[in-house]
Amino acid sequence: MDNTPNAKSANRLGWFIFFGCVIGVLLLGLLATSITERRAESKWATMQIIQPIGEWESDNSKWGVNFPREYGSWESTKQMNENTKYGGSGKRDYLADDPRLVVMWAGYVFSKEYGAPRGHHHAIEDVTGTKRVSAATRASCWTCKSPDVPRMMNKLGGPANFYKESFDHFRPEIKNPIGCADCHNPKTMALQISRPALIEAFQRQGKDITKVSRQEMRSLVCAQCHVSYYFKDKVSSYLTFPWDDGLRADDFEKYFFETVKPNPDFVNAISGTPIFKTRHPDYEVFSQGVHAFRNVSCADCHMPYKAEGGIKYTDHQVRSPLYNMANSCQVCHRWSEKEIRDRVTSMQDKNREMLDQAADSIYPAHIEIGEAMKLGATDAELAKPRELLSKAQLWWDYVASNNGMGFHAPQECARVLGRAIYLGNQSRMETQRVLAKRGVINPVTMPDISTFEKATAYTKPYADAQKAAAAKH
Amino acid sequence: MDNTPNAKSANRLGWFIFFGCVIGVLLLGLLATSITERRAESKWATMQIIQPIGEWESDNSKWGVNFPREYGSWESTKQMNENTKYGGSGKRDYLADDPRLVVMWAGYVFSKEYGAPRGHHHAIEDVTGTKRVSAATRASCWTCKSPDVPRMMNKLGGPANFYKESFDHFRPEIKNPIGCADCHNPKTMALQISRPALIEAFQRQGKDITKVSRQEMRSLVCAQCHVSYYFKDKVSSYLTFPWDDGLRADDFEKYFFETVKPNPDFVNAISGTPIFKTRHPDYEVFSQGVHAFRNVSCADCHMPYKAEGGIKYTDHQVRSPLYNMANSCQVCHRWSEKEIRDRVTSMQDKNREMLDQAADSIYPAHIEIGEAMKLGATDAELAKPRELLSKAQLWWDYVASNNGMGFHAPQECARVLGRAIYLGNQSRMETQRVLAKRGVINPVTMPDISTFEKATAYTKPYADAQKAAAAKH
Repeated sequence: MDNTPNAKSANRLGWFIFFGCVIGVLLLGLLATSITERRAESKWATMQIIQPIGEWESDNSKWGVNFPREYGSWESTKQMNENTKYGGSGKRDYLADDPRLVVMWAGYVFSKEYGAPRGHHHAIEDVTGTKRVSAATRASCWTCKSPDVPRMMNKLGGPANFYKESFDHFRPEIKNPIGCADCHNPKTMALQISRPALIEAFQRQGKDITKVSRQEMRSLVCAQCHVSYYFKDKVSSYLTFPWDDGLRADDFEKYFFETVKPNPDFVNAISGTPIFKTRHPDYEVFSQGVHAFRNVSCADCHMPYKAEGGIKYTDHQVRSPLYNMANSCQVCHRWSEKEIRDRVTSMQDKNREMLDQAADSIYPAHIEIGEAMKLGATDAELAKPRELLSKAQLWWDYVASNNGMGFHAPQECARVLGRAIYLGNQSRMETQRVLAKRGVINPVTMPDISTFEKATAYTKPYADAQKAAAAKH
Repeated sequence: MDNTPNAKSANRLGWFIFFGCVIGVLLLGLLATSITERRAESKWATMQIIQPIGEWESDNSKWGVNFPREYGSWESTKQMNENTKYGGSGKRDYLADDPRLVVMWAGYVFSKEYGAPRGHHHAIEDVTGTKRVSAATRASCWTCKSPDVPRMMNKLGGPANFYKESFDHFRPEIKNPIGCADCHNPKTMALQISRPALIEAFQRQGKDITKVSRQEMRSLVCAQCHVSYYFKDKVSSYLTFPWDDGLRADDFEKYFFETVKPNPDFVNAISGTPIFKTRHPDYEVFSQGVHAFRNVSCADCHMPYKAEGGIKYTDHQVRSPLYNMANSCQVCHRWSEKEIRDRVTSMQDKNREMLDQAADSIYPAHIEIGEAMKLGATDAELAKPRELLSKAQLWWDYVASNNGMGFHAPQECARVLGRAIYLGNQSRMETQRVLAKRGVINPVTMPDISTFEKATAYTKPYADAQKAAAAKH
């Protein structure tokens, strides 16, 4: 071995570097562990219940004490931003945008007011402020608006006792807009279903909703409300999903016209046609699209993960992904924001065009049947055109009332609207025959319904007459 | 320094290891270079012209001597495999599958025979064997069938002199099926456009086709033939693309009914309706879809790259990607073959359903107009229903005649079919009025056209009468 002073000092330097490295690596490891632990700690801090949450706690701010980030982002759902081309979180008056709806819903509450939904934070404000609500409104209309609802259902001993009450009955009790308890277990924070209608719909299909995956839950908590539904009857007002035959428009037609044949939501005041108002089948339409096919959940795009320092959490500002493409679309699609927006808009433009064509195939059908009735056409003669029209409007509504302007399943929405166009025109051909038998061969002159006011003026006498006739019985 | 024998031998060992490593790395480098070079050599071997190829060489086997792999895969286009659900390389008789087409094309050659296209290798065999060809057929019908065509066009001094001849005139000259010279420059092997109609269509839009990217060329060489076209008139038979207003069905309607208003391809023998036969707008439909949006070319899916040892080359067995998902779809989509097939088929099923609905909106319209004519309806009375029907059939044909059963642009195809359904039914409503004026109120009884034979038997008297009337003039 080399024991000269020079060699000794060189050896010492070597050992010094060696141990220096060892210690450096050790310190780096410690630092990494410390960061990891700090992350875990913070995660634990968010998961740890600082103030215990009661089993039926409906006050969102009480949950917020424990989960300030989730609560803070949830609070942002009160923001009203500039609308996207077809959606967004601002106000939007669908009836002013398309007064043909007033004719299609003549005599029904939807012809009075129908606007785009705002953020979850506005749920109570919007449901109590709409012209659709009156003294006759049933408690069922509260169902999706507040975490006070499951609390009241529990208190009353089940949903049936809740649904059968009047809307007004619960005004003093229901105060908190859609929030934490609607989707989360207060003990474990796990996602859970709080609304009976979804659980019951699963049961009727022989499926147990407690057995689904977490990823499925990330859509199903939304599917508690963003779905089609109807009320079994006006007395029980029991809220039910028309899912027994499946989720497609074809399945809905089978359910409403063959399998269950429930009471229609209303009878059109102009044409006497029974109408099923499908209401927002968002989950149903989404299920037919490529994102569902690829196992993407609602939350993946509408509540993407968000980072704050070392913390990753779910953004509870549920909104259009077009407001937040970087965290939603661009996680999978390596496209520029302009490319994404162009692609989305081009799909929505096509859907809008087909919606127009479908509405143009349906609203005149109501008016023509109304004319035939004035000429004495009987219910027997009008049975076929009415059935075709009723189906046409069901198919149209399946797309018209779902959010996303066709984006969630573009081809499927187009197929459904193609069917609506076909059925609407078939109805018109049948009515044309009834009219021709009474000597009316030239086209029925269409009224000016170019604004909400004009459309309302046209439909009012029909709606009044319908109300008067109902009062007589 | 350490000069003891032990230290000396340790030092020698150190140098030995050091130089050993250096030499090892050097050898590895040489090996790598050698592999790369061998690959480059083989690539060069394929690219090197062993036998020079003449400027107008139409014999594919002559090119094959130089490019055995490409030629070998091209030869495979003669294979007839089991069909995919809606396409494939086997035989498929569209008229037997859907006899409604016989009514829609009554009096036109397409009502005699219309089958799915087979591989490129069968082009000459199929065009000369079809019942659509007769002594009256123009030379234009050769245009897409053989690399002998550009050779003859050159020999005759331009396409006009080619188009104006009869089909029979070129039988002795045109022998080689669609092949090398249709898409490649014989000197450089670069992709090039050999057919004037595409170059002219670009010119009329103020675009220079020699300035496009290679990736665009990988679609445009296909777009020489897989497009919509018409003949300016029966004398010049000049082949033209209806692209001046754009590539969408909307643009075609504008072109055919407003901008250029060329002669229709035929007049339906039953209804007297002028019809534009859009023929396979494959490139046009593809341009509306997500693959085109993402700059994927026809060749990327229908002629994917293939590896043989160290060689990578383009598979010239042009065919459905469903026969070869590993090299086409799965390059981008990390899905299982089953998932891919399910997804494709679900889109095609929807398209098929809408095609059916559109056909059901169009074929009765011909029959009803025919009935009105029998009752003495005038051309003036029938102008509107015929125009609507003519447009309906144009929109329907845009989807019906393009290959891929809607896959290339599912939502766009559905939108186009929705419009076809709308226009077809609008036409029927107009005809219904004409009939009602003549006392016919009940629906016109539809003939039994459930087989090709029955549909042909029904249309024959109309076709014969049309032929007799034409002979008189």
